[in-house]
Amino acid sequence: MNKVKIWTAGLAFSCNSVMGGQPCDCLPPLRAAAEQLRQKDLRISQLQAELRRPPPAPAQPPEPEALPTIYVVTPTYARLVQKAELVRLSQTLSLVPRLHWLLVEDAESPTPLVSGLLAASGLLFTHLVVLTPKAQRLREGEPGWVHPRGVEQRNKALDWLRGRGGAVGGEKDPPPPGTQGVVYFADDDNTYSRELFEEMRWTRGVSVWPVGLVGGLRFEGPQVQDGRVVGFHTAWEPNRPFPVDMAGFAVALPLLLAKPNAQFDSTAPRGHLESSLLSHLVDPKDLEPRAANCTRVLVWHTRTEKPKMKQEEQLQRQGRGSDPAIEV
Amino acid sequence: MNKVKIWTAGLAFSCNSVMGGQPCDCLPPLRAAAEQLRQKDLRISQLQAELRRPPPAPAQPPEPEALPTIYVVTPTYARLVQKAELVRLSQTLSLVPRLHWLLVEDAESPTPLVSGLLAASGLLFTHLVVLTPKAQRLREGEPGWVHPRGVEQRNKALDWLRGRGGAVGGEKDPPPPGTQGVVYFADDDNTYSRELFEEMRWTRGVSVWPVGLVGGLRFEGPQVQDGRVVGFHTAWEPNRPFPVDMAGFAVALPLLLAKPNAQFDSTAPRGHLESSLLSHLVDPKDLEPRAANCTRVLVWHTRTEKPKMKQEEQLQRQGRGSDPAIEV
Repeated sequence: MNKVKIWTAGLAFSCNSVMGGQPCDCLPPLRAAAEQLRQKDLRISQLQAELRRPPPAPAQPPEPEALPTIYVVTPTYARLVQKAELVRLSQTLSLVPRLHWLLVEDAESPTPLVSGLLAASGLLFTHLVVLTPKAQRLREGEPGWVHPRGVEQRNKALDWLRGRGGAVGGEKDPPPPGTQGVVYFADDDNTYSRELFEEMRWTRGVSVWPVGLVGGLRFEGPQVQDGRVVGFHTAWEPNRPFPVDMAGFAVALPLLLAKPNAQFDSTAPRGHLESSLLSHLVDPKDLEPRAANCTRVLVWHTRTEKPKMKQEEQLQRQGRGSDPAIEV
Repeated sequence: MNKVKIWTAGLAFSCNSVMGGQPCDCLPPLRAAAEQLRQKDLRISQLQAELRRPPPAPAQPPEPEALPTIYVVTPTYARLVQKAELVRLSQTLSLVPRLHWLLVEDAESPTPLVSGLLAASGLLFTHLVVLTPKAQRLREGEPGWVHPRGVEQRNKALDWLRGRGGAVGGEKDPPPPGTQGVVYFADDDNTYSRELFEEMRWTRGVSVWPVGLVGGLRFEGPQVQDGRVVGFHTAWEPNRPFPVDMAGFAVALPLLLAKPNAQFDSTAPRGHLESSLLSHLVDPKDLEPRAANCTRVLVWHTRTEKPKMKQEEQLQRQGRGSDPAIEV
């Protein structure tokens, strides 16, 4: 009796039933079984490989590609509280997604304090610098309204947005054509609720809302009826074209780009600086009320006291002043 | 010739080689093959089930269970800028992991403004209330040093930490025994870098650092040699036991709990309030210098100007004052 040996993957046997020199007809089913086993081994290998594959990247918080960018324009100038104010503001801005900070120094060249602060902020930023011309500068003791502060700096940021360059640090390229965005002028001493930024993000033209603690009032702001701005709550020259504070409006970027001559006028009369920009851009009746039809205060015109340095001067006279190497 | 039919999972054949009424010895290997096929099908099902299982939860940022909690104690009182200050501070605190805000109102009962702000803050908080006794209250126009503000409120927070209850909102249970933590007294008008909180987190006893724009100086702060505090840079009574500002130190929670009588003394002379607590807790030579051996300013004693309300009063006399229903 001849034996026929058959080896297949994982299956070996010998057939002892050979008839007429031919193996018995067990052979085809055994071969079929061997093939099926081979195929199942293959499938198992494939599945094991699939399981070993690293898991897909964890679902990211939805990338806010679709969100319009908020361009926050902040003029700033060197003074004792400058770093404190900028730290505070930068930390607030860090809570807002899809935000680009345009920080504009009133200086001849970028200062190490501001450059260092921007670099450490973790924000997307553009660093700009422009010195206010001497004729427009406030003299010691002059009240702020003699020359409105920050005009040149805000216009410098508008220039950059319009592709006229000038960045000294951070992102140097202006927004690419077609960028959806909104521009907000945020001085470094005000207080901003993080909620404010979501109110302004989807501005189509010019959006407005109340500002707390400004103009000698608890708040100033637009008066709204049926979803439209019909007037302004303010005590100071209510007949100005736009009796709104710098912190009380935002402008869609496409609108600003479509009106390349719209900018702030440093010679505007007291209280008319905002109007000098907005008159180029929008009719008052088309202002878009935000913050629950202008019934919520989400920004406050806070002002920080100028610190007294009497003791510092005394100690300095004795050669014991605060270590100038320590940045404050 | 008899045929023996064998069916197995996915494998059917008939043996036509029966010898003496017995099927040929192909049968055992075929049965083995069938069993192997069954097992491989099982394995494939298991692997497919594993693949269908939802992926593991994405790697969370390491749960900061191991971080000591920072208890931030903030006394606050009603005034025009209160909400602005608290919004600003709460947003800063929201950047700090493992932080518990103890907000203590100087009031008879919790105010809607503060309760609402806490609820909206997203912070872990405890809301406390204690009215400053009339004899210790500042009268209109009195300078702040006549009665140091916030003494009762800070002591109320210490009471709560020590299990003496009194919370009116938020987390009402005090830290469980053995909690690792640190206590910091953060007034609502100062400016805090988020970095400051990581400096204080691992305080063993009492840690210290400089404070900007305080005491008439660019900064006040400990002087450090070889990693130890050897003196203090200050212009005001440098011989006070602890010539440090309220914003310039933090205390380990276990130390505070181990000294149940340590609290602020409302009758302490001007500039000695901090010393009235710290004298119970630590020897000046054992203070732990932080912030790069006290060479970095990460907190500023900023003060917010009291807003003028002249126009508000005028409009109110004409019945046109700012809508009192709008919270500012």
